[in-house]
Amino acid sequence: MTSTLRVAIIGHAFMGRAHAHAWRTAPRFFDLPARPELAVVVGRSAERAESAAHELGAAEWSDDWRAVIARDDIDIVDVCAPGDVHAEVSIAALAAGKHVLCEKPLARTLPEAERMAEAARSAPAGTRAMCGFSYRRTPALAYAKRLVADGRLGTIRHVRAQYLQDWLTDADAPLTWRLDKEIAGSGTLGDIGAHIIDTAQWLLDEPLEAVSAQLRTFVAERPVLSEQRGLGGRAAADAERGPVTVDDAVAFTASFASGALGVFEATRFALGHRNANRIEINGDRGSIAFDFERMNELEFYDAADADGEQGFRRILVTEPTHPYVDAWWPAGHGLGYEHLFTHQVVDLVTAIAEERDPSPSFDEALSVQRVLDAVERSAAADAVLTQVGGGA
Amino acid sequence: MTSTLRVAIIGHAFMGRAHAHAWRTAPRFFDLPARPELAVVVGRSAERAESAAHELGAAEWSDDWRAVIARDDIDIVDVCAPGDVHAEVSIAALAAGKHVLCEKPLARTLPEAERMAEAARSAPAGTRAMCGFSYRRTPALAYAKRLVADGRLGTIRHVRAQYLQDWLTDADAPLTWRLDKEIAGSGTLGDIGAHIIDTAQWLLDEPLEAVSAQLRTFVAERPVLSEQRGLGGRAAADAERGPVTVDDAVAFTASFASGALGVFEATRFALGHRNANRIEINGDRGSIAFDFERMNELEFYDAADADGEQGFRRILVTEPTHPYVDAWWPAGHGLGYEHLFTHQVVDLVTAIAEERDPSPSFDEALSVQRVLDAVERSAAADAVLTQVGGGA
Amino acid sequence: MTSTLRVAIIGHAFMGRAHAHAWRTAPRFFDLPARPELAVVVGRSAERAESAAHELGAAEWSDDWRAVIARDDIDIVDVCAPGDVHAEVSIAALAAGKHVLCEKPLARTLPEAERMAEAARSAPAGTRAMCGFSYRRTPALAYAKRLVADGRLGTIRHVRAQYLQDWLTDADAPLTWRLDKEIAGSGTLGDIGAHIIDTAQWLLDEPLEAVSAQLRTFVAERPVLSEQRGLGGRAAADAERGPVTVDDAVAFTASFASGALGVFEATRFALGHRNANRIEINGDRGSIAFDFERMNELEFYDAADADGEQGFRRILVTEPTHPYVDAWWPAGHGLGYEHLFTHQVVDLVTAIAEERDPSPSFDEALSVQRVLDAVERSAAADAVLTQVGGGA
Amino acid sequence: MTSTLRVAIIGHAFMGRAHAHAWRTAPRFFDLPARPELAVVVGRSAERAESAAHELGAAEWSDDWRAVIARDDIDIVDVCAPGDVHAEVSIAALAAGKHVLCEKPLARTLPEAERMAEAARSAPAGTRAMCGFSYRRTPALAYAKRLVADGRLGTIRHVRAQYLQDWLTDADAPLTWRLDKEIAGSGTLGDIGAHIIDTAQWLLDEPLEAVSAQLRTFVAERPVLSEQRGLGGRAAADAERGPVTVDDAVAFTASFASGALGVFEATRFALGHRNANRIEINGDRGSIAFDFERMNELEFYDAADADGEQGFRRILVTEPTHPYVDAWWPAGHGLGYEHLFTHQVVDLVTAIAEERDPSPSFDEALSVQRVLDAVERSAAADAVLTQVGGGA
Repeated sequence: MTSTLRVAIIGHAFMGRAHAHAWRTAPRFFDLPARPELAVVVGRSAERAESAAHELGAAEWSDDWRAVIARDDIDIVDVCAPGDVHAEVSIAALAAGKHVLCEKPLARTLPEAERMAEAARSAPAGTRAMCGFSYRRTPALAYAKRLVADGRLGTIRHVRAQYLQDWLTDADAPLTWRLDKEIAGSGTLGDIGAHIIDTAQWLLDEPLEAVSAQLRTFVAERPVLSEQRGLGGRAAADAERGPVTVDDAVAFTASFASGALGVFEATRFALGHRNANRIEINGDRGSIAFDFERMNELEFYDAADADGEQGFRRILVTEPTHPYVDAWWPAGHGLGYEHLFTHQVVDLVTAIAEERDPSPSFDEALSVQRVLDAVERSAAADAVLTQVGGGA
Repeated sequence: MTSTLRVAIIGHAFMGRAHAHAWRTAPRFFDLPARPELAVVVGRSAERAESAAHELGAAEWSDDWRAVIARDDIDIVDVCAPGDVHAEVSIAALAAGKHVLCEKPLARTLPEAERMAEAARSAPAGTRAMCGFSYRRTPALAYAKRLVADGRLGTIRHVRAQYLQDWLTDADAPLTWRLDKEIAGSGTLGDIGAHIIDTAQWLLDEPLEAVSAQLRTFVAERPVLSEQRGLGGRAAADAERGPVTVDDAVAFTASFASGALGVFEATRFALGHRNANRIEINGDRGSIAFDFERMNELEFYDAADADGEQGFRRILVTEPTHPYVDAWWPAGHGLGYEHLFTHQVVDLVTAIAEERDPSPSFDEALSVQRVLDAVERSAAADAVLTQVGGGA
Repeated sequence: MTSTLRVAIIGHAFMGRAHAHAWRTAPRFFDLPARPELAVVVGRSAERAESAAHELGAAEWSDDWRAVIARDDIDIVDVCAPGDVHAEVSIAALAAGKHVLCEKPLARTLPEAERMAEAARSAPAGTRAMCGFSYRRTPALAYAKRLVADGRLGTIRHVRAQYLQDWLTDADAPLTWRLDKEIAGSGTLGDIGAHIIDTAQWLLDEPLEAVSAQLRTFVAERPVLSEQRGLGGRAAADAERGPVTVDDAVAFTASFASGALGVFEATRFALGHRNANRIEINGDRGSIAFDFERMNELEFYDAADADGEQGFRRILVTEPTHPYVDAWWPAGHGLGYEHLFTHQVVDLVTAIAEERDPSPSFDEALSVQRVLDAVERSAAADAVLTQVGGGA
Repeated sequence: MTSTLRVAIIGHAFMGRAHAHAWRTAPRFFDLPARPELAVVVGRSAERAESAAHELGAAEWSDDWRAVIARDDIDIVDVCAPGDVHAEVSIAALAAGKHVLCEKPLARTLPEAERMAEAARSAPAGTRAMCGFSYRRTPALAYAKRLVADGRLGTIRHVRAQYLQDWLTDADAPLTWRLDKEIAGSGTLGDIGAHIIDTAQWLLDEPLEAVSAQLRTFVAERPVLSEQRGLGGRAAADAERGPVTVDDAVAFTASFASGALGVFEATRFALGHRNANRIEINGDRGSIAFDFERMNELEFYDAADADGEQGFRRILVTEPTHPYVDAWWPAGHGLGYEHLFTHQVVDLVTAIAEERDPSPSFDEALSVQRVLDAVERSAAADAVLTQVGGGA
């Protein structure tokens, strides 16, 4: 390992912590072609950034991302801040010749995403841009991708994707930035709907062509947040209420170029499901099914199995032959959520060292944003819904 | 048990066998207010009807349903034949003052269903009509209904219903009557889609208001059938191909009056799922989930459970306190598919004896047909799909 | 179908109802070589036997089993009464040249079982005797038997069998006949332990050679029963308590001739398990796992699957190719508990018509009784337990 | 955080890597009262230790554990080497006043364990000793412990513990040190059987009193190893075979002081189970069930739930209220295997800082060793097995 890649993280909340762990951990388990080093933590407040730098293991901190981007000794800018700074920071960093890893969804709007993708295309030669659709790095999904690519599912007929959470079910859950359109761009749609759109397009290796969508905001006003915590947070007992300006849930049917029929649903109101990021794909030779709440498992049905012996196999995706797994533990000793980010670092660092674009590129993330945009346009159109006729 | 209810079954294939078993079995396990007796089996061929009568335990048979309906000693006409005879037989039987149990979907088209519902309304006083949405009689779903009605789920936010089968995945599976629009009215939509629509409307006790749908016919031509068998059958090796005139799969989002968001999907191409009739409902106080492939189980999540102790409970719906179960076996000794029909007989006979309308009435079945119709209209409309914008 | 086999059922409680349903139902779904006919119901009380005969569909009833056995028009005696009459009735019936189907466990004690097996051997030529280990007739287990017999599991290393119920967990559950050594012979051991012993010996096709056992009676006294109901019943609020004279739970390790290691456990105190009759077998080529609470499923692991693709397959044992299933419903439409008894009738009637011994014969049931006996001897021996050494 | 605890790791294979990750990671996610620092990696070969030190993030390395123990700047000695060095290193380190974390099983034999426990008792005041039964640190099991301690299970009746692996199923899997009695002390028994014994004693807070055991060595000779890898490794195609001197599998019934009945089984031949460390406990008020292959889940059955609503709840043990979880990710974002070791570091560092003994202490580990010893004595005794009587 000859070269070092020095990283500046922009943002140090939930995502920043996950990314920092990954930067620290990847070189300890994987034999990387370059050594990443978490150098600077950037936040809005210098004081909190300093505290985070100590906690996350960075030597430096700053409250001035422009200054950090201008430094010669920073190679990678890792954008973990909320959606309202994605475009500005990423575009500036790319222009400065820094590799960029930007959290998802890429942008708040399609035009913003287009500008970011354009920035990635026009960055100085050799500058790489990647969007953090981290679920692709779940070994079970990476293995599913291999099965699909190898034709083991045959012609795809159905994609059934759901991302079910329940942390907004309580009408008194507070108003976090994720519920503010100005910051987040959209609600459930962009936050978790984007993940299942990306997963589906990536697994099938084809884009969604058309959608028919409904959005819902079940709770219109919520108490103003006093302290962010995880995805949610706390509000004072007497907190004022402010408006929720994004969607709480989204459902849409979709059509793929190949004729496959897609059904997508994302919500934060599916009581009982904490983080059920699920996808099932049915082809004419096989099927796969996945639920992130059992992230170490993949269900695989192979129509080539003998009559009477067919059934979904519960594959524990913890074998050395499975993607990413060889670097970790013996079979049956499962991985957790943060491994996705560690694998993301492995893939990004490898791509940089090998002088090729990482995946998902900003253009791939843009193709997700186009679907988000189509979903919003569809849901806003009157004609999308056909009334069920009443009685005489 | 003083009176006897003599039954004529019209049709003796898969459904006829299931119904005949139910007529025989219900009075053995349940204490009924009237004794049903399978009297006549009616089929298109007198020879096959005779053979079926012997097999099913009826003393008589006929190939003339009009003659049978005209008999004074027949009380109930049980319509188990394909969809193209539902309307004609049911309307005639009702006019003749016979109670009618008609298989689902009620009709091939909305106008046909309207005529049938009208016939039920205008039948001689005391004549009862019921539609065979038998899945309502699964103890687990009947128990779910009780939980919903008792407010245990709170305000409903999401309905997620799927009916997944896979017997058409093979492009060489033969062309049965279920694939012929003239006979079946529609394909997957009416055959199994109707079940999940009925289940959803019944569980929530409110109708679907609007839908946005896609239909697919994945395989346009299939070999002509030589021998019906179960849902499918066999075709000769050199069989000609004929056109599939119905849908293979349907997906739609739906909107309930209450604002709940529905996602429905039915298909015969979900490889690996033989009969996954599934529904999940999320409210703001609880959730339930059901899959007919595990018909003796209901998943129930109760938000009132203490923090840290919450989780979906796998309830084995085999307790004496559960609907229908007390008549059967000790807890943990599960029931099978045909019990649904036995329970249907119990409910129909009880309603007749108690001189009230059974449920689902033809009007309830009509409300399902209105959704089927809206789905077809939606899927035929261009505006339902919004194109995902391409790149520059 | 030329001949008729007329059946007298001795006993009309839980087991009698299950058997009666089977006698009625088997000829309706299976093409049998002889037609069984439920002729007489026998009970201790003529009045209750009459009522049961009406309910179960028999034309005659009696409170005198000896008189019934003496009749020329009875071909099969079906012993569904508690264990204390198994030997007397079965031996007399066999001596009278009647085919006998006797519920399990065959007897209360090993000597009693030996006399019964001897009676079967010395009965008039062509007289058949079968013991009701009905779980063998679960399609999933019959299919597992086929996999084992075909060598798909290779050399067997482990058998892990549990029969978990929980209906005695409550210390106030009443004292039924199943808790009375005089009537039942033993408790959990003979009632449900016998099932898993039979299943294991049958699946492996080899007997248990040696055991090391513990028995437990957790609750020594219980309120005297006032009304039997299912497996348990009701006691008056002020009921006296009487002694439980049998085991509540049993656990033993076992050794098979082949060197396979067995672990068996049966209990009525496994809270949460209503009827978890489970077995798992691990060989060096494959494994199978089964739980009766999901009786339509078999888990199968095939080591011949490709690396990375291995996993337990959930086989829905509802295909036409699976044992017994072709007579029933389309794939995915599961069966229930009583089907086991219907299949038992099919196999017994077929064996009688084909003039060969059914399985399990009384000799096979005797081999189970030998294990029950060894378990009781082992549990009574002091040397079976090794003390864990204490501290200094 | 004022003080630093400098750690020397003895051994840098599978366990060493897991421990090193934990030392690095614990202070990044938990607010610890002292800062651990991985200082030295010790191995048999200086060259390999140097390479490991670079990989694992330690500044120093050594092939002389005695010299390392003698250093003043080492506070904790972390024994991750095979069992044959546990006693020697731990005793020396304790005598030198170093805190010791020693991998499990504590020792190869009971006398060795007794010497180690004595060394812990007689170490300089304030010196702490802990044994690495890491599974206790699974949040789901730590939460189960809380439920048991709170009386939510009531009086315990049954403990059913299994540790099922399958990496020795193939008779050509190579002869690793884990199969050598000189090094490992015992085979499956000590390696994984020890875990479930510890878990059971810890959850119930009472020791096993007596056991009745069988041991099996299914494959007597295996090819000599050429390269260790994970739990297994590789052998040359023409490798000689050497003797397996330990057990491949163990099964025993057990008796607790309270009268609870235990059934324990551990094996490396349970094909299809990679790492199924399972325990189920049934009390008279509730039950819990756990399988490490789904380490983020705990099944809990509460008899206090209303009639008809009872069932095992699948609790996703990822809530802030669950042990250890608050330091990590939002609910539903599961943890992996290595988190156990991170939590172990948290608990050890906290105990040291708070000047109290960590748990499991060497005395607790000794109580596990006593059970291992009793199992071996039982399995060696002839009287443990009762022969099943043969026929006449």
